[in-house]
Parts: sequence; C-alpha cells; structure tokens
Amino acid sequence: MPASSSFMPPKRTLMGPGPSDVPDRVLAALAQPTIGHLDPAFQGLMEDIKALLKYAFQTENRLTFPVSAPGSAGMETCFVNLVEPGDTVIVCQNGAFGGRMKENVERCGGTAVMVMDDWGRAVSPAKVEAALKAHPEANILAFVHAETSTGALSDAETLCRLAQDHDCLTIVDAVTSLGGVPLYVDKWGIDAVYSGSQKCLSCPPGISPVSFGDRAIAKIRARTTKVQSWFLDLNLVMDYWESNGGARSYHHTAPVNAMYALHESLVMLKEEGLENAWARHQTMHEKLRDGLKELGLTYLVPAPERLPQLNSVMIPDTVTDEAAFRSALLTDHNLEIGAGLGTLAGKVWRIGLMGYGASDKNIALCLNALRTLLRR
Amino acid sequence: MPASSSFMPPKRTLMGPGPSDVPDRVLAALAQPTIGHLDPAFQGLMEDIKALLKYAFQTENRLTFPVSAPGSAGMETCFVNLVEPGDTVIVCQNGAFGGRMKENVERCGGTAVMVMDDWGRAVSPAKVEAALKAHPEANILAFVHAETSTGALSDAETLCRLAQDHDCLTIVDAVTSLGGVPLYVDKWGIDAVYSGSQKCLSCPPGISPVSFGDRAIAKIRARTTKVQSWFLDLNLVMDYWESNGGARSYHHTAPVNAMYALHESLVMLKEEGLENAWARHQTMHEKLRDGLKELGLTYLVPAPERLPQLNSVMIPDTVTDEAAFRSALLTDHNLEIGAGLGTLAGKVWRIGLMGYGASDKNIALCLNALRTLLRR
Repeated sequence: MPASSSFMPPKRTLMGPGPSDVPDRVLAALAQPTIGHLDPAFQGLMEDIKALLKYAFQTENRLTFPVSAPGSAGMETCFVNLVEPGDTVIVCQNGAFGGRMKENVERCGGTAVMVMDDWGRAVSPAKVEAALKAHPEANILAFVHAETSTGALSDAETLCRLAQDHDCLTIVDAVTSLGGVPLYVDKWGIDAVYSGSQKCLSCPPGISPVSFGDRAIAKIRARTTKVQSWFLDLNLVMDYWESNGGARSYHHTAPVNAMYALHESLVMLKEEGLENAWARHQTMHEKLRDGLKELGLTYLVPAPERLPQLNSVMIPDTVTDEAAFRSALLTDHNLEIGAGLGTLAGKVWRIGLMGYGASDKNIALCLNALRTLLRR
Repeated sequence: MPASSSFMPPKRTLMGPGPSDVPDRVLAALAQPTIGHLDPAFQGLMEDIKALLKYAFQTENRLTFPVSAPGSAGMETCFVNLVEPGDTVIVCQNGAFGGRMKENVERCGGTAVMVMDDWGRAVSPAKVEAALKAHPEANILAFVHAETSTGALSDAETLCRLAQDHDCLTIVDAVTSLGGVPLYVDKWGIDAVYSGSQKCLSCPPGISPVSFGDRAIAKIRARTTKVQSWFLDLNLVMDYWESNGGARSYHHTAPVNAMYALHESLVMLKEEGLENAWARHQTMHEKLRDGLKELGLTYLVPAPERLPQLNSVMIPDTVTDEAAFRSALLTDHNLEIGAGLGTLAGKVWRIGLMGYGASDKNIALCLNALRTLLRR
C-alpha cells in the first residue's frame, strides 16, 4: 500500500482552461453537512438552482437543470436524447470539442456532416449555410459557442438563425461561455445547450447545467427508440427534476454537496448581475491582452473572434521546452496555465480568466510570473 | 426570481438508504482548494485513490477507479462496455435494482433473461443455476450483492462460482455492500463491480468506484462495435486513469473536490481496517435489531439473508400515515429514514446503518425517536 494519509492540495492559482479558481464562499457551501436527496430542504434547493440556471442561461425553459456529472456527460445528454438512428447532424468543428460531438452523433447511430474551420477561428456561417443547403435531410445543427481548446468565440445568434431557416434544431456547447460572454438561449432560439460548473461559474468540476426548449422536448417525446443511456434519459430525469406538484420519482442519487456549491456560485452570479459579469470578463481580458502584448506575446485567434475568458497565445521561439516552462510556473509561482490540445499542442498556451479568476490580482500574478520566467 | 440567498442545510442524521452521514474529516477534505485535474499533485492523488480502492474491493485489478458520476453511471459503465448487441445476460431481480440492470442490458441491444426472487429475499442460487443451464448462450450473469431497496444480502461467492462453471462473466452491484459486508472481488472471481460513494464509504453522493478484471477487459478489447457512451467508454477512460508511465490523455475533467472527499473516506476505511469496519456494521446491526424488537418492529428479510447496513422493517398497523410519520421523524428529530421502494412502498421503512453512521449514537437517536412517535 502507498502512503494513505490525508491529502493536502497545494494552493494554486488556476488560469488554465478550467477548473478555474473557486471562491471561499463556494468551497464553504460544498462542505455543508450532507442531507438526503429526497429531503424537502434539498427539493427546495433544486427549485432554486433551476430558477438561477434559467437566469444564467437567459431562458424560460422549464427543462433547465444540472446533470449530475461533468460537461462531457452534459454533451452526451443532448446527443443521446436528440439524435436517433438515421438522423443527420451538421457538426461544426473548429477545435477539439467539435470532434467529440461527431463521436457522440455516430455513437447514437446518426450521420455527422462535418463543417471544418481552422483551429483558432470562429465557425464560418457561410460554410454552415452551404452545408444546410447541401443537406436538406439534416435535422440538427451542433456547434461550440466558446471553443475551450482554442479560445475562439463563434456567432451563436447567426448560426441558430441559419439552423431555424433550414428547420434544424440546435445543440450548443456553452461549457466555457456560460457566465463569461453574452449567451441568450431564448432570444437566439437555442434548442439544447450544455455547460460546465468549473469554468465561468467558478465551481468545482463535476456538474453540467443543461437546458432544453419545447422543440427539443417534442423531438424527445416523439422518439421511436429508447434513449441508449438510462442514466441520461431525459424522460426519466424529467420526472426527478420536475415535481409538477406531485412527488418526485427517484431516478439517481443527486450529488448533494456539489449542488450546494453550484447553488452558491449561481447566487454569486446573480448578486453581481449577468451583464456585469460579462463586462468584467471583457475588461480583464483587455488588461491581460495589453500586458501580454508588452511581453511580446501574440494571440492565436484574430481579435474579433477572441474569447475574453480564454486567451490562447503563441509560445515564443525562445522557449525551447514549453512543458518545463509550465512546470516552472506551477512550482515557482503556484500558477497553472493550460497547454495546447490536439494540433495546438506545443504551439500555444491557454490562459484562462474565468469567473472569480477574472481579476486584477490574477492578471498581476500571471504577467509577473511570465515576465520572470521569459527573462531567464 | 425566487429567493437567491445562500443555502443553509438543516443538520440531519441520515439513517436512510443513502446518502449516509458524512464525517467532518471528509467534509473538510471536500472543501480544500480546487487544483487542476492535470496537476501533478492531483495525479498523485488519483494513484492513491486507485490503490485504496483496490484495498476496499480486495482486488489487484489494474482497472480500479472512481467513475466521475453517481452509482447509476457506475452500473451503466459496466453494462455499456461489457454488453454488445446479441449478448444474452442473465439478470437476477430481487428488488428495484435488478430491474434497472434489465433496462441497461436492453438499451445495449442485449437480451436479458430474468431470474426473479421475492423482494426481501436473497437471489436463489438454484434458480440461477437452472437459468445458466437453460441458456447456454448466456455470456454474462448480473446480480445485486446488497439490495438497497429491500435489505437482502445475496451469496455473491456462490453466484460467481456458478457463473464461472458456465463460462459467464459476472457484473456485481456492490453499491451498498462495499465497506459494509465482506466483499472479495479477486477471491470470488468477480469480473466487473460497481459501487457508490454515499453508502458505507460515508462520502457525499456523486462518485461510483468500479473495478474490472482481466476477462472483462479482454471482452471489452474484443468488441466489434463502439461503446455507445463516449463518456463511459473504458477504452478512453483507461487512458485517463492509467498513466502507464507516460502522459495521461485528457478525457474529461475529473470532479476534483469530490475526489478529495473520496480519498479521505478511503483513508478512514484503511485506518479502521476493512475487517473491523465489517465487524462494526454487524455489531451495530445487532444492537439496532434488539432495540427494534423491543419496539415490536419486525424485519422484512429473514435473519440469515439480512444486510447489517440496511434494515427493512414492516410498518406497524398502528401507523396509518407512514409518510407523515417519516416527516415527523425529520421535523421533530432531524432524523431521516427511508421509505419503501416499488412494491414495498407504504409497507416498509428502510433504516440505514452505513459507514460512519453505524454508531451507538445513531442507534440511540433512532430508537428514541421511533419510541416517542410510536407511542403517540
């Protein structure tokens, strides 16, 4: 047996692609005493979380709730419920997560029509429109709003309008966008959306907020085959998360303490105000951008397509061992930034400014640490 | 918007079917600062958790790790990876969770051959043997070791031997048994097993420890179809949880803080010693049983088949509104006990003595509260 003593994590500053820094209030909420998942007090909390998530997503969708598992499971919840064998889904890929969407479509027995854009660029509405025209059999359009692997922001409003013009439902990955940049589920007519707790909501990882509109629910209700996942089957989950005035039916045991934390993070978002949170992310992004420029670092993503909360910068030629550089940031400064993923591995660093971590203090720490190590 | 103020849960004593009481040490671990899921410190924690889970499961299985989602997802991990379309699975049902196994088999395109026993009784080895003989095409036997819905303990050792005699793999639900009663994954030759964090491990709900042996892994590697779930695909998860000396490949973001808590609960189990924990559950069960007898309460399950950690008692005729009775326990005594599930709804109460909650203090509270309310 290895050492089996209590674990004391180091105190890091988390400026990677997530998890992001978790405020003390949220950590304290996490450690409140566990109660039963069918306790009336917990049921009240579930209702509050649903209402707060509606605010965060800017939606009146009745079916808005947190999936009891990480963002990947939120993605899968959307696909396994909405995609039936025989469906054609137009999947936009401009980074790592579009590829995961393709995997999901195919494992549901659907056909994925790929619309490819360069890693680091927004999804091209012109290409999407061409694909919609070329594939009238398509009934779903899926894309990533904020690509965590590159830092590119796509024009979700335009993409959703195109989908609607071609009678397609939309599945939108808002893992990194929720709480960080404008996202209007109802105004833009998004049919299904998923996010994660560990990005701009500043919560520990493990929970995936989702929301489904009426057209999405109608497609789920009209399924002729069972959803392949029992755990993620919305027909069952709906009975658990919606009391409809009656008794909730037991589906699975909700991660009670994780819900305390999610609730507290949503309360903090409500206190700040969604628009103020978006504006803070933008302001902090500009401060970081100016500081990075002074250090001679350049962005992967063109300015108009940049996510404020995820800054991908090109690794300078002077850095010969980028992994060692990130290790030094971690060891000497307790600062975590992200490596590049996939085709961008070894080429970019990803610097997160998410939620609570989008702060002057974090920017100062990051710029100082980069300055120190780049001078070596 | 509803009230969006911080949530302060009531302080309950949890003696239902789970979640069970969480010790302060585990809650404190949960609230440690979040670090990155690829941080070297977190990777070290992952290795410690795997080693401690091997101890808890009594296995040397390399593929022993916690699924980042509740027990239902642990169950689904076993079925979606091991069952391919065309497989025949003998599923034992003696309570609610055997029915869920059937759902899983069918959603994987398999055929479930059901072996039915009364709710409240152990699985009958004779019936299982007959089914194995009648269905030589079956390649998997699935059963629940400790039925949380009834409090019955089945003879996992004998059932596994029967499966081996008929060249079947075994999938065993150990959600409520792990840490509470003897469970020997290697000695009994269990091929795939799943559990939950919120029962005898005394952790908050949300995580499902699993373990897979070599024969199970061989079947997964020999699949001709992709696992229908991307999130639960062990081919991908293995690369994340097994470093093999190289870099871990990113699969999903692990629920970092939940892993802190799981680790601490496993450290506590190791400190006490597995055999001591099993003995404590048995001792406390006998104390509770004697007290319940004094109150005139009788058990659903015959003595030799009883789970120490889950005590299902018949609701006495004098209690005309059992839901109101449980509400009074909750309101007047802050005590949660469980209702009956499925066919046992309204007929039994389920009193848990799980993990940290298997204590003299909890038994005294429970017996006193029942005595007070039954006298009314």
